Amino acid sequence: MTTTLRAQDQLIGLLRDGLPDRAVLIAERDRRAYERDTAPFGPSGTPAVVVRPETVQQVQHVLRVASHLGVPVVPQGARTGLAGAANAVEGCVVLSMLAMNRILEIDAPNRLARCEPGVMTGDISRAVAHLGLCYPPDPVSADICTIGGNIATGAGGVCCVKYGVTTDYVRELVVVLANGEVTRLGGKTVKNVAGLDLKRLFVGSEGTLGVVVEATLGLRPVPGESLAILAQFPTATLAGEAVAAIIKRGHTPSALELMDAVTTGAVHALGHPSIQDPNAATLIAESDAPDRVDEVAAMARVCSESGATVVVAAINDEESKQLLSARRMIMPALQAKAATMPGDVRSFIEDVAVPRTRLAELIDRIGEVSAEHGVFIATLGHAGDGNLHPIVVFDAADHGSLRRAQHAYDDVMAAGLALGGTITGEHGVGVVKRDWLARELDPVSLRLQQEIKRVFDPAGILNPGKVLA
Amino acid sequence: MTTTLRAQDQLIGLLRDGLPDRAVLIAERDRRAYERDTAPFGPSGTPAVVVRPETVQQVQHVLRVASHLGVPVVPQGARTGLAGAANAVEGCVVLSMLAMNRILEIDAPNRLARCEPGVMTGDISRAVAHLGLCYPPDPVSADICTIGGNIATGAGGVCCVKYGVTTDYVRELVVVLANGEVTRLGGKTVKNVAGLDLKRLFVGSEGTLGVVVEATLGLRPVPGESLAILAQFPTATLAGEAVAAIIKRGHTPSALELMDAVTTGAVHALGHPSIQDPNAATLIAESDAPDRVDEVAAMARVCSESGATVVVAAINDEESKQLLSARRMIMPALQAKAATMPGDVRSFIEDVAVPRTRLAELIDRIGEVSAEHGVFIATLGHAGDGNLHPIVVFDAADHGSLRRAQHAYDDVMAAGLALGGTITGEHGVGVVKRDWLARELDPVSLRLQQEIKRVFDPAGILNPGKVLA
Repeated sequence: MTTTLRAQDQLIGLLRDGLPDRAVLIAERDRRAYERDTAPFGPSGTPAVVVRPETVQQVQHVLRVASHLGVPVVPQGARTGLAGAANAVEGCVVLSMLAMNRILEIDAPNRLARCEPGVMTGDISRAVAHLGLCYPPDPVSADICTIGGNIATGAGGVCCVKYGVTTDYVRELVVVLANGEVTRLGGKTVKNVAGLDLKRLFVGSEGTLGVVVEATLGLRPVPGESLAILAQFPTATLAGEAVAAIIKRGHTPSALELMDAVTTGAVHALGHPSIQDPNAATLIAESDAPDRVDEVAAMARVCSESGATVVVAAINDEESKQLLSARRMIMPALQAKAATMPGDVRSFIEDVAVPRTRLAELIDRIGEVSAEHGVFIATLGHAGDGNLHPIVVFDAADHGSLRRAQHAYDDVMAAGLALGGTITGEHGVGVVKRDWLARELDPVSLRLQQEIKRVFDPAGILNPGKVLA
Repeated sequence: MTTTLRAQDQLIGLLRDGLPDRAVLIAERDRRAYERDTAPFGPSGTPAVVVRPETVQQVQHVLRVASHLGVPVVPQGARTGLAGAANAVEGCVVLSMLAMNRILEIDAPNRLARCEPGVMTGDISRAVAHLGLCYPPDPVSADICTIGGNIATGAGGVCCVKYGVTTDYVRELVVVLANGEVTRLGGKTVKNVAGLDLKRLFVGSEGTLGVVVEATLGLRPVPGESLAILAQFPTATLAGEAVAAIIKRGHTPSALELMDAVTTGAVHALGHPSIQDPNAATLIAESDAPDRVDEVAAMARVCSESGATVVVAAINDEESKQLLSARRMIMPALQAKAATMPGDVRSFIEDVAVPRTRLAELIDRIGEVSAEHGVFIATLGHAGDGNLHPIVVFDAADHGSLRRAQHAYDDVMAAGLALGGTITGEHGVGVVKRDWLARELDPVSLRLQQEIKRVFDPAGILNPGKVLA
């Protein structure tokens, strides 16, 4: 015990040598506040210390000290992650990047923004909107998550069906390695094939390879006005078939979002005015193309042909935004519903993705999993990408409920893999899906991943136990 | 000598154990035919043997034999590369992938094509055109280059300014490693963040990490009809300024191609009917958006405001294709021009890219380099991406001419780097830019690249001396 305390004192002393006092948090309350991201299960520990560096040099100092002492370092953004990738490990240094939150440069003519990692994702688009530009990836958490966290997880979002995900917008990264060295990966040009594409190796690496201290991101012109439709179907399976048909017909919607009947009912109960049938599955399709009137009309026809019983069409941008707002009401609506349920109600948010033609089968299988385990599952997601977020609800006060929910969570991943899909489309592996990675990747690929990890972090101090075992 | 011959006999004997006779070429004429890609300089050697495997198992056999004997292996596609990445090294096994040239599966509803690496790039779009789909990346060599080579180099093309480059379309790769192991990287879903993004590490790795034996590629709906304009400017610098202005105004052209006055004159001399002024620089801008009439008119206005003296506007798809055909006439036109020059005329094709706002400065600097060294340079390229291909012409029979051309080639790369750009946008590093890589990447990044190479190929048998020293 004394030895441990001495080691902790030495760690904190050395960290203070290169950090301002305000950047070193040692109070138990502070340390406990940085223990977990939003994954409701998976292991975590209490950090020995939380540091909030304000400069690249301070990040280097932290990593040099941690390397010197062999102490694990867990990088964190806003801890909105859903896979436990930001969970602290016992006795680690939590390296919170929230204090490095400046937009460093906006280069409108080259459509670039250079940011520190702690910038909130939604702030980037707000900062460039007056220039007619935006940063497209739009996770539902965009206003409360950081761009550094988005890079670490490879975040997606609603408009990604048309505009792509985080990796498509990362041009250049400055990273600090485990040993404190700094390197610059990628470049500021649109195209660059000078050497191996290390910047993209960092996207989705969940803080296991190094710490992103600066990112140069590509921007796009703000899309034109959008038009949306909201279609309702007797079953989510029919809605899934409509999604496949929309893609097959060659449409490129700017959003194509699904809510099953449970989710639809919750959003209706929270008072969304456009939901006519609270017992039906709902599909929202949006087009922001110059020919959006035609494209939306065509998508509405596909929905009708696929069995939609209700199709509500917006007639202008404002009405479209209102239809889309149903998407952003889902989490509060489900929380409100959960509040009416007995027990200490929590949920796991799944993130499986399948080829779009297999979506209906995945939805069917989720229904079976729910019935088999007697578990409440609300299914929603970025259907246009084949990416669903089934939300598995459980009573944390009831051990049996938790166990059944975990089995259901696992069975949904198994269903995703069986349909040629992936265990994670945009939330990452973290700790909660680590054991599942070996079921998606073959042993050779897993070994390569482990060896690449060792190239960047030979002593294994960076976010140990995440992604790879 | 006897020992070497014995070693060669042993190599060929072991290779024959797992390959059909037709797949093992040992005649000197055959071996010499596979010595080089189209880079006019940079080292090459004569292979000990050329193998043309027809199955994944045969590729594994070749790599197991080569690993066992410690013989270098140089993977090759159609050898249309411009950086010497496919150049044989003395005594190596050339592993030509041309016999693995089947399109294995077309999955139209999921917009996917699964191919062997020897498929010609242009054949993919032709195979899916009747389904309303295409594979967008369109290097000018699309009809004579392979998709495996495109993946190895990270190829670009004309429409990439709007639709992205090879890496944006690679979903899943099956690769054989140096030791003969097979692994599958990535997946068939639109989104996938399960582990490190190893498939993108392979794109642009020029055969140094492993051999791609199968690729699943994303497809897109065929774009709508296009409209193009051809604008002529007193100087290429003014054309470069017009490019920056077009991007700054928020346009997303589907092509934005530049030809300097020399190139324009050559294309005019070859008889292109739309070139009015053979002494002016030329910009071709195309839009395939639903509002292309407006977009093309707006781009034409920007060109006029930027100093264009001539603007020719197409009024339909057919006329647009004719304007764009000037782009595909460039190489034959310059070859025809070279044929009129004295000596054994050859050329280096540069591939620098800069942020788009620096394009005019790069063009100016190229003019200075040409004057300083007394070297003929024709500049053209994918201006909308900031990616230029200055073509440095020299007389191979005149040692002084060659030396001056090499200095000019180097100075253009130095100019690209000085303007915040890269030494290669889409052609790769190969052997001809290997020494320059260390001027673009910092030492830490270079070291990481070398260590990652060792993870995949510890004995260094795969394409030695390419990309990295």
